[in-house]
Amino acid sequence: MRRALLIFFACGILTSTSRQSASRQAPSPQAVPGQLQVGILVIEGVYNTELTAPMDMFHHTIFHTDPGMRVFLVSESEQPVTSFEGLRILPDYSFANCPDIDVLVVPSAEHNLDTDLENERLIEFVRDRGEKAQWIMSLCDGAFVLAQAGLLDGKAATTFPSDIPAFAEKFGERVNVRSDVSFVHDGKAITSVGGAPSFEAALYLCEVLYGAKAARGIAGGLVIDWDLETVSHEKHE
Amino acid sequence: MRRALLIFFACGILTSTSRQSASRQAPSPQAVPGQLQVGILVIEGVYNTELTAPMDMFHHTIFHTDPGMRVFLVSESEQPVTSFEGLRILPDYSFANCPDIDVLVVPSAEHNLDTDLENERLIEFVRDRGEKAQWIMSLCDGAFVLAQAGLLDGKAATTFPSDIPAFAEKFGERVNVRSDVSFVHDGKAITSVGGAPSFEAALYLCEVLYGAKAARGIAGGLVIDWDLETVSHEKHE
Repeated sequence: MRRALLIFFACGILTSTSRQSASRQAPSPQAVPGQLQVGILVIEGVYNTELTAPMDMFHHTIFHTDPGMRVFLVSESEQPVTSFEGLRILPDYSFANCPDIDVLVVPSAEHNLDTDLENERLIEFVRDRGEKAQWIMSLCDGAFVLAQAGLLDGKAATTFPSDIPAFAEKFGERVNVRSDVSFVHDGKAITSVGGAPSFEAALYLCEVLYGAKAARGIAGGLVIDWDLETVSHEKHE
Repeated sequence: MRRALLIFFACGILTSTSRQSASRQAPSPQAVPGQLQVGILVIEGVYNTELTAPMDMFHHTIFHTDPGMRVFLVSESEQPVTSFEGLRILPDYSFANCPDIDVLVVPSAEHNLDTDLENERLIEFVRDRGEKAQWIMSLCDGAFVLAQAGLLDGKAATTFPSDIPAFAEKFGERVNVRSDVSFVHDGKAITSVGGAPSFEAALYLCEVLYGAKAARGIAGGLVIDWDLETVSHEKHE
């Protein structure tokens, strides 16, 4: 075990590709035909890493496939959202003017286990956009929001490790609650434990959509040595 | 190698501690005596992960030591900054009104290899605050900014893997350029390869300042199984 991380990062460094050299290309500001629209939900108290890890992986697709994804942030209003860690973020769209979403991403936020679940406008937006989306993804406690919207009914899913008991208590009759894996894929839903492994769930979807070479290139830009076979995950049919 | 990541994440999940249960505590909005002030520099085109990984680790100290750190973002002006990936961020302070900084953090940004180095106001701010700080940290190409300010003169340092040749060409006479490690610690400077390993450089400083138990707790909140002995790094005296 002690050697494992050393090897991991040594390999990561040695195999990493350049994000910087690619960065001189300007990201496309508008959707182009065939481009998947990734809408990331930012709720007050959103956790930084669960927001930025998938945002980075999906944004960086533009350097590894054509067209890459278009990523934007949507919130209840267009007012600034303050993350749990104090990052003040300007959303790109509100619920009222949000464009179509092909991939709905729900990062965890501070009140995902309580008041967010009682926010009918929030849950209705997630239900509506989640039903229409090709893919839905939660990181960490974002799974509670997806489940409350009914989007995980009959599916296998996971969440932040120490919140597994609460998740099972609340949604266990409708959701096949899984633990001890980085992420779970069932149908169009991908649910991640969150934290640093959030990169993995996003890289997995990149690999499904754009192939292993693209996923490996995207990972390399963040000094991650990506090999899906080494990542603990479950795929349910 | 293939088993390595599986073990890593399985262990990470099994040993993770609850960030959520701690999250009900409100972060302190103002400095308290003995609290280290972490100033994170946000330059236009800042990379998300190199900003949020250290921000998260340092912010989450509040749940594992007392007093934890106070973390804020400083930019040239108080105007919104757009990250490389399109995240629109409101800085907390400008260069003009920034409070004292104990730990200066320089995440990479899109133009760290070119126009940022010619921005005299930026480099002068980094030089001034870096000289006064107890610690300076760069993630990825932020090392170019620290080096341009003279803060790495005579020190060992590293940067993003594919930018090592450019770093050595530009600063090799003044800086002992290191590669194939996650991060390098020399004196008060910690320089990281950036990307996902950015968590490690920040966790290392948490361990130095607050001990291994605190660092392990902070890591667990992001489902990282932290053990410094497993992480490739160099310490120079």
